[in-house]
Amino acid sequence: MQALSGEWRREGLRIAFVPTMGSLHEGHRRLLEEGRRRGDRLVLSVFVNPTQFGPGEDFERYPRDLARDGAIAEGAGTDVLFAPAAEEVYPSGRPLTRVTVAGLTDRLCGKSRPGHFDGVTTVVAKLFNIVKPHVALFGEKDYQQLVAVRRMARDLDFDLEVTGVETVREPDGLAMSSRNVYLAPEDREAALSLSRGVARAREAAAAGERSAEKIIEIVREVIAAHPQNAIDYVELVNPETLEGVTVLRAEARLMLAVRVRGTRLIDNAALRPA
Amino acid sequence: MQALSGEWRREGLRIAFVPTMGSLHEGHRRLLEEGRRRGDRLVLSVFVNPTQFGPGEDFERYPRDLARDGAIAEGAGTDVLFAPAAEEVYPSGRPLTRVTVAGLTDRLCGKSRPGHFDGVTTVVAKLFNIVKPHVALFGEKDYQQLVAVRRMARDLDFDLEVTGVETVREPDGLAMSSRNVYLAPEDREAALSLSRGVARAREAAAAGERSAEKIIEIVREVIAAHPQNAIDYVELVNPETLEGVTVLRAEARLMLAVRVRGTRLIDNAALRPA
Repeated sequence: MQALSGEWRREGLRIAFVPTMGSLHEGHRRLLEEGRRRGDRLVLSVFVNPTQFGPGEDFERYPRDLARDGAIAEGAGTDVLFAPAAEEVYPSGRPLTRVTVAGLTDRLCGKSRPGHFDGVTTVVAKLFNIVKPHVALFGEKDYQQLVAVRRMARDLDFDLEVTGVETVREPDGLAMSSRNVYLAPEDREAALSLSRGVARAREAAAAGERSAEKIIEIVREVIAAHPQNAIDYVELVNPETLEGVTVLRAEARLMLAVRVRGTRLIDNAALRPA
Repeated sequence: MQALSGEWRREGLRIAFVPTMGSLHEGHRRLLEEGRRRGDRLVLSVFVNPTQFGPGEDFERYPRDLARDGAIAEGAGTDVLFAPAAEEVYPSGRPLTRVTVAGLTDRLCGKSRPGHFDGVTTVVAKLFNIVKPHVALFGEKDYQQLVAVRRMARDLDFDLEVTGVETVREPDGLAMSSRNVYLAPEDREAALSLSRGVARAREAAAAGERSAEKIIEIVREVIAAHPQNAIDYVELVNPETLEGVTVLRAEARLMLAVRVRGTRLIDNAALRPA
């Protein structure tokens, strides 16, 4: 892969890159489409990265279907599907070297998933060095990841652009995620409370509500109406620093994480003052 | 710099890179010579990196002479002297992102200089992304740094080779260092005890001594003979893992750090069993 991308760069070709953990859905397809538009060559990586899973998390049962991923990738005009084995990515087991982004990664999902973002930024730095992209595309669904990766790329002077692509949703509003397959049918309504909560928050903001506390309370109420939901966090944050805001003065990001029975779901959206 | 190295790479030119903190001496010249041999284009960076100095260390008084460095660089056939300002390297102050190499960097110099190697590996990762070298040259004088940077480059899949170049010494044996200018003339003899200790250790190994404890004791005695010397460490370590060895069975690295009055000096050498 590295030799090939080196050749492409020598030929002056523009490389677009979509790093994923596979189990592709419509959200990934949208990333590939955007990558296809923005690059002469399009690389998709599929790697379920062990270092970003904590103990007791779903590394083993994370859905994998490389044959199906390959078909989707081909349909989207992918030039290379890069799917390395864990032993190729980490030839000496856990690497000694870690890339960490302070501040941005210790809050929100970082609180309940210690080490998760270190695993992400480290493997993404590796993939950037292997694929040598001009543009790398990440879904806004994992907003904190997008912000951390963008910051990492800028701080370490990677010669590329990190681009976020809007969350794709099911017709009923549920944000697309490879983990949605974990949801039992009877928990679907409870899972929908995330996107409904976001929608209610947007309505409130549009109607003039500026208090973060009140907006958050509206969302929490929608979610808490379902007894199988356990809220991890609902926060309104600065879209770049991810620090909490108390008053909606400029565009902010509403961030939420909820356990729906055993399944942890996240969602987020931009909120603007009326 | 990044645009230029991108162009060079497109043209298929091989880039050699010598990262330094300036105040060039014969050791740096040897690095440049080796780089000149190994690359079509030779880049020298001069950057006194604030993040690798601890509080109370010599960041402010570290010797700087860019005009002289430029003349030496030119004489050695350097194509580009890259000397960015601190505000260019760290536009937002201290970066949030850190590149750390666990294990290798918490021992030896890492013990008395906490955070030093994080500063080094982070700025080197940045420089690698800016200069895009095919080969990067580091002096063996800073052996722990060489090992940490090589490991970082491998762990993060940087598409380059990290090469160590042998320590250059003054005619009297003192390892060349930009910090040697700190030495008062009356401390020169005391400073020489580092290289003399190394020489005595090599003699002992050649004569069949295999006990790390005894070899270390020989070195400590040579150094401690000067009252102005305070030993930071004398250790015999595995040349790759930097873990201590007790018996000299295969090639090992003798590592030492000594404060000669106010000046901290380091030296090291390969020891092989007889």
